[in-house]
Amino acid sequence: MKANEGKGVLIVLSGPSGVGKGTVCKELLVRNPQVKLSVSATTRAPRPGEVEGVSYFFKTREEFERMIAAGEFLEYMDVFGMNYYGTPRAYVEQQLAAGNDIVLEIDVKGAMNVKRLCPEAVLVFIAPPSMETLKKRLVGRGTETAEAVERRTQEAFAEMKLLPEYDYAVVNDVLEDAVCSVETIIKAERLRVCRRADLTNF
Amino acid sequence: MKANEGKGVLIVLSGPSGVGKGTVCKELLVRNPQVKLSVSATTRAPRPGEVEGVSYFFKTREEFERMIAAGEFLEYMDVFGMNYYGTPRAYVEQQLAAGNDIVLEIDVKGAMNVKRLCPEAVLVFIAPPSMETLKKRLVGRGTETAEAVERRTQEAFAEMKLLPEYDYAVVNDVLEDAVCSVETIIKAERLRVCRRADLTNF
Repeated sequence: MKANEGKGVLIVLSGPSGVGKGTVCKELLVRNPQVKLSVSATTRAPRPGEVEGVSYFFKTREEFERMIAAGEFLEYMDVFGMNYYGTPRAYVEQQLAAGNDIVLEIDVKGAMNVKRLCPEAVLVFIAPPSMETLKKRLVGRGTETAEAVERRTQEAFAEMKLLPEYDYAVVNDVLEDAVCSVETIIKAERLRVCRRADLTNF
Repeated sequence: MKANEGKGVLIVLSGPSGVGKGTVCKELLVRNPQVKLSVSATTRAPRPGEVEGVSYFFKTREEFERMIAAGEFLEYMDVFGMNYYGTPRAYVEQQLAAGNDIVLEIDVKGAMNVKRLCPEAVLVFIAPPSMETLKKRLVGRGTETAEAVERRTQEAFAEMKLLPEYDYAVVNDVLEDAVCSVETIIKAERLRVCRRADLTNF
């Protein structure tokens, strides 16, 4: 029996836009080589330098829609009715079986889909220190009109209401602390009895 | 909102005798001043130097049996039909409300009682690296007859079957690693949404 070594964890980092979940995710991956980012499928064209199966799994609309119909996605979305993006279930399952932790960085709606299709997923809500901070961050991006900022702030309020559906909440105030908290969650989840097939055959 | 600060955690360290749960518990308390050991109630007489409410809550048999009848214990046992020992629910609840983590170090039967009465308790099974190691430790104590060692080993096998009822499993191979694992579990449990009343009023 290996000491305190469990099966891989499917970890979902989610939260309102502007909360910094992308930054938390990036830092988590840099610091933890055993944590892998899920590779998404998309219908958009590859950009120079992008590699099939590493950057994305590139699909035609027909292929993507066949995969939707066959239930092969943990979650997907149709961005502006232009391009599909989704998380293929098979890739995630292969990585977990290989003992890797897999992280998905997705929006609140996607997280709710993953929870439904994959009850063993660990859902982490990345929360802002306060709604005022979140609004400031949305304004600070400088890429959006006042109207768009207001709409996103309202969306963020609505998304905060889904917090009770999550397993854990991590406040992203100091990035270093937030990343440490996510690392702690992954380590603890690896000690869960439900992931310790090694011990149940004791 | 304080960053990543949840409510206190009731943590149950349990497992077969000889597994070293007492040593893990002692080291955990030394290293983490915010983790408090639950104060037990007992009907045995105070020994020199023992302090009421610190070492134990000392009770008469009549008082103890009244508390049992009133459902005031999370778990209790009648040791050799001589003395009662038990965990008073009120003390635990006061400590959790004050934001302290509380640890109970109890046997498997007691842990199952706590789980029934206190579903938010976090149950950690301290497991031996192997059954052979456990048997060696029981022999190594040198305080028991070969017959008693054999009986305890059989009991330990039976207790291992209850592992699926626990939340987490920690193999006590290297003490330092086992204590770190318990610390990680406590930190992660403090980030659970169900303990984040501060965030649900967002």
